[in-house]
Amino acid sequence: MGERLRVAVLGAGTVGTEVIRLLTTQADDLAARVGARLELVGVAVRNRHAERDPAVPVELLTEDARALVDKADVVVEVMGGIEPARELILRAIRHGAAVVTANKALLAEDGPTLYAAADAAGVDLYFEAAVAGGIPVVRAVRESLAGDQVRRVLGIVNGTTNYVLDKMATEGVELEQAVKEAQALGYAEADPTADVEGYDAAAKAAILASLAFHTRVPLDAVGRTGITGLTSTDVMWAERTGHVLKLLAVAERAHDEDTGVDGVLVGVHPALVPEHHPLAKVSGSYNAVFVETASAGELMFLGRGAGGAPTASAVMGDVVSVARHRVVGGRGPVESSYADLPVLPPDAARARFQLRLDVADRPGVLAQVAAAHAEHGVSIEAVRQSPGDAAVAHLVITTHTTSERALRATADAVAALPSVRRVVSVLRVEGA
Amino acid sequence: MGERLRVAVLGAGTVGTEVIRLLTTQADDLAARVGARLELVGVAVRNRHAERDPAVPVELLTEDARALVDKADVVVEVMGGIEPARELILRAIRHGAAVVTANKALLAEDGPTLYAAADAAGVDLYFEAAVAGGIPVVRAVRESLAGDQVRRVLGIVNGTTNYVLDKMATEGVELEQAVKEAQALGYAEADPTADVEGYDAAAKAAILASLAFHTRVPLDAVGRTGITGLTSTDVMWAERTGHVLKLLAVAERAHDEDTGVDGVLVGVHPALVPEHHPLAKVSGSYNAVFVETASAGELMFLGRGAGGAPTASAVMGDVVSVARHRVVGGRGPVESSYADLPVLPPDAARARFQLRLDVADRPGVLAQVAAAHAEHGVSIEAVRQSPGDAAVAHLVITTHTTSERALRATADAVAALPSVRRVVSVLRVEGA
Repeated sequence: MGERLRVAVLGAGTVGTEVIRLLTTQADDLAARVGARLELVGVAVRNRHAERDPAVPVELLTEDARALVDKADVVVEVMGGIEPARELILRAIRHGAAVVTANKALLAEDGPTLYAAADAAGVDLYFEAAVAGGIPVVRAVRESLAGDQVRRVLGIVNGTTNYVLDKMATEGVELEQAVKEAQALGYAEADPTADVEGYDAAAKAAILASLAFHTRVPLDAVGRTGITGLTSTDVMWAERTGHVLKLLAVAERAHDEDTGVDGVLVGVHPALVPEHHPLAKVSGSYNAVFVETASAGELMFLGRGAGGAPTASAVMGDVVSVARHRVVGGRGPVESSYADLPVLPPDAARARFQLRLDVADRPGVLAQVAAAHAEHGVSIEAVRQSPGDAAVAHLVITTHTTSERALRATADAVAALPSVRRVVSVLRVEGA
Repeated sequence: MGERLRVAVLGAGTVGTEVIRLLTTQADDLAARVGARLELVGVAVRNRHAERDPAVPVELLTEDARALVDKADVVVEVMGGIEPARELILRAIRHGAAVVTANKALLAEDGPTLYAAADAAGVDLYFEAAVAGGIPVVRAVRESLAGDQVRRVLGIVNGTTNYVLDKMATEGVELEQAVKEAQALGYAEADPTADVEGYDAAAKAAILASLAFHTRVPLDAVGRTGITGLTSTDVMWAERTGHVLKLLAVAERAHDEDTGVDGVLVGVHPALVPEHHPLAKVSGSYNAVFVETASAGELMFLGRGAGGAPTASAVMGDVVSVARHRVVGGRGPVESSYADLPVLPPDAARARFQLRLDVADRPGVLAQVAAAHAEHGVSIEAVRQSPGDAAVAHLVITTHTTSERALRATADAVAALPSVRRVVSVLRVEGA
C-alpha cells in the first residue's frame, strides 16, 4: 500500500465538487479497493478566487490546467464543453495518464479521436458518467453484454424532459409552466434548449448506439425531435389510450426497406409508451435505459441520471477501475467499432404510430381517412372517435407497424382531405 | 487475429447448451470483440451418449473433465453443485486458466477458497451469472459502484417464488396450486424446496452482500424464511394495505442496538413492498435488484433472472472480459474483503412490521394490544380493524421502525393476551 496515484480533477462544478469530496472523505476505502492511495494533486478551475464548497481544498486550486494534467496519473475531466476539455484530455493521454470523463458532448462529437489517442497510448479512457449519470449502463453495454447481441436500446436519458412531461401528466399544466417549475427546482437550465430540444439526449443516444452496435454513430446521424411541440392535449390523449408520453432515445438494429440496407437507426423523439411497460413508470427526474438483446432478453437499468453525487458515483467507479489497472496492470475496453454498420436515415424507422386528427363531424369521414391509410399500405390497428366542439370530431388512429416514410406520406394525404381540418399530432408508439 | 483461446465448457444443461450455441454461432463477433478467436475445445458431461440439443457438437463431448480442463485457457463451469465443480475449478485455476462460473451454491459455500486460489495464480474468476441470471448486477456492484458506499441491497433474486407470489396475488390461488403451475411451466423444480424455502435466494444474498460490503458473508449467517407459510389471506391483506408480497434478499449496513456493534445484516424473507416501490412492479419470473448507495442514491436493475439464454448472456459477457485480459494483459477485480465487517444476527434488524391478529370482537381489545406494543417500546403507525366471523375481529397493525427483537417480544406478549385468539402473521415492510 506504499504506492500512490496522482489524481487531477478538471472542473469544480457540481460534479467536480462531489468527486473531490469522495476522494477526500473515502480515501481509506478507495485505497483498499484500488491497492494504492489516490492523492488529489490539483483541481483546475477558470477562476481560483471564486467562492466554492468547503469540500474543495483551496490550496489545490489552479488555473493552469495543462501543468496539472502533466503531473497526474489519472485525470478526471468534469469541466464539460468541447474546448479546452478535448485539448486537455488528449494532452493527458499523450502523457500516459488514464482519463475518466463525464463529457457526453465531447464524446458524441469527437469520441473516435479520443478513443484512438487512448488506444495508441495504451491508456484507459472511461466515461460511465457521460450517459445516464449514476446508472452504470455504459459498463453494462460495453462489458456485461459483450457476449450478447443488442437489438434495441430505449432510454429515458434526460431527467429535465422527463420531469416536465411527468408534471404535465400529473398536474395537467402546459409545457411552458412545467419548464418554469423545473427551472425553479434547478432541474432545468436558464436556457433549456439543450434539454427540451433533445440535443442532450441525442449525444447520449449516439454514445449508447456506438457501444451497443460496435459502430461509430456520428451525432449528425441521430434523428432528433424535442418536446417543445407537445401540449397538455397530447398528454391527455396519451393517457386516454393507455400510454405515457416520454422523450426517448432509441437505438436499434434496422432494415431500410427502400434501399435494402441493414444497419442501425438512432434517434430521439417523444413517444407513446404503453402504461404497462417498465419505462412508463419512470417518473420525475429519474433516468432509465431499457435494453433488448438476443440472449438476455429485456433488461432495464433505473436510477438518477444527473446531479452531483450520482454522477460522481459513476466517475469514481471509473476512477477505481483505471487506478486498479495502474496497480495490477492491464487495461479496460477500447473502442469497438468493428461491425461498422451503416447508420440509416431516421425515416427508415419502422414502428407503430398514433395520429390525432380534427375532422368534420359527419358520416363517411372515417372511410376516407381509412382509405388514405390503405393506399399507402398502412394498416390500422385501432380508431377512437370522440365529439369535439362546433361540428369537429377528434379521431385517434393507431397503426400497426409501418415505415415512418409510409406514415408521413399517409399523414400528408390525410391532411389534404377536404373533411380533415388538421393533423394535430403524429407520435411513435415504442416498447409495445 | 491469428491468436486463439481454448475454451472448455463444463456441463451441457440448459445454460451450457446456450453458451455452446453462442460460442459457435457468434464466433466472428466474439473474435472481433476479444481480439482472438474463441475455440471451443470440449464439453464435459456425465454421459456423452445422452440425447442433446443439436447445438452441442457430439465430437467435442467428453466424460473426462479433468483432461479437458488441463488443455483450456478459459474454463466455463455451468455444471452446478459443489463437487466435482469445486475440484475442477481449482484445477483450472492452478493450471493458469481463467474461470467463468454460474455456480451460486459453490460461491456462497466456499467462495473465499476459490478467490484465494485465483488470486494466488493471478487468473480471473468471474461469476456474473451466479446472481440474478442475465442481469449484470455482479459487475455493477463489484466495479461500477466501487467508488461509492452501498447502504442496502434489496433483491427479487428468485424467479420461481416471484412467479408463485404473483400468481397468488393476481389469481387468488393458494401457494400449493401456484407452485404446481410453476412446475408445469418449468419455472419450479419437481422438488421446489431450494426455491420456496429461500435457500437459492440466500446463496445469492450472501454473494451480493460480500461484494457490496467488501466483507465475507458466510452462508450460515444469512437469515432465511421461505414463502411456504404464506396464504392467499396474507396476499389479500398485503393488497388491502397498499403492498405487494415479495420474497426479498436483503443485505444492509446496520447497527445492533443491543451490542453496539456496527456491521452488515443479510437475510431472505417474505416482505411487504409498498405498491409504488419499483420492486412492487417486478412481476412473473423477472428478477430485480434495488441498490441504495451514499452517492448514486437509488438504482434498480431488472431482467430475466434465470433460463438458458439469459444466463448464457451473463456467462458470455464474462468470457469476453477474461479472454480480453488474456489478449491485452491485466486482470479483473479480485476478492475485496478488506472491510471485514461483523455479520450481525438476523434479529438485530430494524424495520417496519405488519402484524395481523385475530382478536375477540369487543371493546377494549385494541387498548390492550396497543399497551403491549408500548411496553416493548414499539410505536404503532397504523391500525386497521375489520369484522370477521363469530365474534372475531381482524386487526392489522403497522409499526414504525423498530428492532426485530422488540417486535418478536411484542408479538409474544400480544399472543398471551386473553382477548387475542392468535397472531396470524408477522411480516416486514421493506423499501418504504
